[in-house]
Amino acid sequence: MGSLPFELFQPLDPDVFSKESHAVVDFIADYYRDIEQYPVRSQVEPGYLSKRLPESPPIFSEPIDTILGDIKKDIIPGLTHWQSPNFYAYFQANASTAGFLGEMLCTGFNVVGFNWIASPAATELESIVMDWMAKMMKLPSKFLFSGGQGGGGVLHGSTCEAVVCTLAAARDKILNKFGFDCITKLVVYASDQTHFTVQKASKIIGIPPCNFRSIPTSASSGYGLDADDVRQAMKVDIAQGFMPLYLCATVGTTAVGAVDPLLELGQVAREFGVWFHVDGAYAGSSAICPEFRSYFDGVELADSISMNPHKWFLTNMDCCCLWLRSPAELVDSLSTNPEILRNKATDEKEVVDYKDWQIALSRRFRAMKLWLVIRRYGVAGLMEHIRSDVGLAKHFEKLVRMDTRFEVVVPRRFSLVCFRLKPRFGATNDDDGLKTNRRLLDAVNSSGRAFMTHALIDGKFVIRFAIGTTLTEMCHVDATWKLIQDIATGLLL
Amino acid sequence: MGSLPFELFQPLDPDVFSKESHAVVDFIADYYRDIEQYPVRSQVEPGYLSKRLPESPPIFSEPIDTILGDIKKDIIPGLTHWQSPNFYAYFQANASTAGFLGEMLCTGFNVVGFNWIASPAATELESIVMDWMAKMMKLPSKFLFSGGQGGGGVLHGSTCEAVVCTLAAARDKILNKFGFDCITKLVVYASDQTHFTVQKASKIIGIPPCNFRSIPTSASSGYGLDADDVRQAMKVDIAQGFMPLYLCATVGTTAVGAVDPLLELGQVAREFGVWFHVDGAYAGSSAICPEFRSYFDGVELADSISMNPHKWFLTNMDCCCLWLRSPAELVDSLSTNPEILRNKATDEKEVVDYKDWQIALSRRFRAMKLWLVIRRYGVAGLMEHIRSDVGLAKHFEKLVRMDTRFEVVVPRRFSLVCFRLKPRFGATNDDDGLKTNRRLLDAVNSSGRAFMTHALIDGKFVIRFAIGTTLTEMCHVDATWKLIQDIATGLLL
Repeated sequence: MGSLPFELFQPLDPDVFSKESHAVVDFIADYYRDIEQYPVRSQVEPGYLSKRLPESPPIFSEPIDTILGDIKKDIIPGLTHWQSPNFYAYFQANASTAGFLGEMLCTGFNVVGFNWIASPAATELESIVMDWMAKMMKLPSKFLFSGGQGGGGVLHGSTCEAVVCTLAAARDKILNKFGFDCITKLVVYASDQTHFTVQKASKIIGIPPCNFRSIPTSASSGYGLDADDVRQAMKVDIAQGFMPLYLCATVGTTAVGAVDPLLELGQVAREFGVWFHVDGAYAGSSAICPEFRSYFDGVELADSISMNPHKWFLTNMDCCCLWLRSPAELVDSLSTNPEILRNKATDEKEVVDYKDWQIALSRRFRAMKLWLVIRRYGVAGLMEHIRSDVGLAKHFEKLVRMDTRFEVVVPRRFSLVCFRLKPRFGATNDDDGLKTNRRLLDAVNSSGRAFMTHALIDGKFVIRFAIGTTLTEMCHVDATWKLIQDIATGLLL
Repeated sequence: MGSLPFELFQPLDPDVFSKESHAVVDFIADYYRDIEQYPVRSQVEPGYLSKRLPESPPIFSEPIDTILGDIKKDIIPGLTHWQSPNFYAYFQANASTAGFLGEMLCTGFNVVGFNWIASPAATELESIVMDWMAKMMKLPSKFLFSGGQGGGGVLHGSTCEAVVCTLAAARDKILNKFGFDCITKLVVYASDQTHFTVQKASKIIGIPPCNFRSIPTSASSGYGLDADDVRQAMKVDIAQGFMPLYLCATVGTTAVGAVDPLLELGQVAREFGVWFHVDGAYAGSSAICPEFRSYFDGVELADSISMNPHKWFLTNMDCCCLWLRSPAELVDSLSTNPEILRNKATDEKEVVDYKDWQIALSRRFRAMKLWLVIRRYGVAGLMEHIRSDVGLAKHFEKLVRMDTRFEVVVPRRFSLVCFRLKPRFGATNDDDGLKTNRRLLDAVNSSGRAFMTHALIDGKFVIRFAIGTTLTEMCHVDATWKLIQDIATGLLL
């Protein structure tokens, strides 16, 4: 038997696995050691890689050393280094050793826990860790499995998936009651600061694009959504024969980190019987610190809450927490019961089958990762992590305020600072500072020494300085500020 | 500065990263070495884990050795071991060293390549590897970026995501032309053997559930979809005022591995102007071997094609390839252009921004994993991998046929064998062998020595023996067959 040709090929031999995995661990450790040498934002030109790689796949096996050499030579120059301490763009995707270890275990076990029996530990650990997270964030007990009121949570890959699923649940509740033709009358509400993912998700589930209401915000409310504006919009819609469906509020908006008033918005949602979703993709992590928890007051009125540990909670991509007051509504919309997956535990309704809480059938063992992060660092370590980033942001904000050429445009709430060079007196052709600030941003990013992105707020071009990459320390913030100042000096000469 | 408390906590210190990652590599290698000791299907009872883990998260950091000890003690008993050589359930999720290494690099870099500039290498490697895969499967050049006809591919996490996105693209093409109210008239077609994910996706994107046509198949066509039946169904629908939207054909169905006739179905799709999707989730991998490629004849008529390297292509979860004849149609439906992501490369339309080819904004660097698998094993190794599994399945089929108590119920096409104990003469109360076969299956699975699942086909209860777990060798197949025979002997006494 040993002589059959197909037994020679053993792609999961434990000794080879061990040897090659150790080599890749060393490779990645070196990558972190060297990371400051690389331009933060990749400086390659579009199409660079197809000039370097062969057009066709290799016929025969290549050794791991050759492949790692090519990654160093061809791939790393084309990466924008999200783990660089000088990465301040978008929102961070902060990695950690524990997040990496959890991902290794998830990938190593490679179980697919779509229902309970397909890997009971995958399902049960996920339910347990979702309760842990909810306790850390002091969410009301009705969102916990252990709360005994039918609530519970699930791990998705992204906020968009969480919004698609909750929108579908909200939609089907109404359509089941009033008939499918009503789909053209359903309306989704958010602010002009809400992440575009809500608008996209709304289109995906079949809400007419013209039925998405993007309600304007302003500086007077710190770019938070005004509950009266929402109430008014719903009234107008109802008068015109529309049916308000879903309201999304955000704690820590993408552009400027604004906070919508959950309590007032939740009350409006109750008044009109619409699904109330709270998106804390970025700032949700901060709720574990008492000093930030008040931003989440009113969350008890939510039907669903989402936040991304893969942003600011040391959990490598991907990991999005979604809690529901009534997961049964989600399951009503998303469940499937094919014969091929029938099993005793499911038939007896004793267990959670997470396939009915998400879009796909297949799913990764993400709970392993989040559980490892929480255990390895503890609540105290995770609070320290949040506070140190906010501390660095406060420090940066102070630096900006000390240089009279600059201004902080939007009040800082978490670890994101939105600033700009003040428009120069008399330079009316500068479009309120837009051109100068854009040139400043381009120059910083082109230097390779830092990467930041921008937003337009009330027509103002602001530079977003998002702190939270795991390796960022005060020395990096100081050096980047000096870089910004020096480039500004050159521009303003 | 060094005395500030928040600088003490360094969750991505390269030395700690290295030390703890090496420990976890050893842990996983040992897991593979010991895997045959564990019951394949977990034998725990619902709720076992909450009895073992604390109700609340730890306040302080715990050492990695403690956590690994708990994983061994509390988590492993609750796993159903998908990497066990005696796992024959569902379809395999085959892991490999290269798949694991690719996932480590993806997680280690932890870049989020939602658009080109956010990590050019992530986008460009994905486009290159999608072309490589298409060449290996001999897909028509119109599905390749390098084909120059506007085609191209993307990596999703699951088939369901691929179907949701292509359905949304098909839907929006029609709604943009005929108005949104038509959504209630759109109809999706598949067979009664098509994976339930298509029905679920169709509901998610807002197609009325009653507009999903599950067309019956029969033994006479090997459970493949009959093109005339589809044509007839579409004619009836049109006569009743419906609008045919989308037809899904499958190569290698979930229950029994049936193949729909792509050429005939593609022609029907052309006739009626509907979107034609080909799902090769499981069997798509086999297209790299010339002897299986003919099952894909007619794929040139498809609008989109999907297959999962995370099933049978040595690529750890998750990885789903989706190719499109016209990605522009997908982008029309899914694109978003918020100011916050604006950049020169996107504005100049020189690049692919994969955020517009999928549901979510964020995305993992999955291309790294698939690229590593292809390079590490080469086309020759991957062909050997497919052929060795099919060889084992042929061997198992022969064993079944040699025991006159058993029968192979559906002709084997790939590495899935569907068999059962023949119904005993005169035992009319046995419901065509259902009870006996169910008892046989339960006994095998409860033994912990193998895990198989079942399907109902034409009312027959068949046991599915899906070969493809990376560690499975002929000795495992032989031992499992002996186990099945022995249990059957006990049942039939």
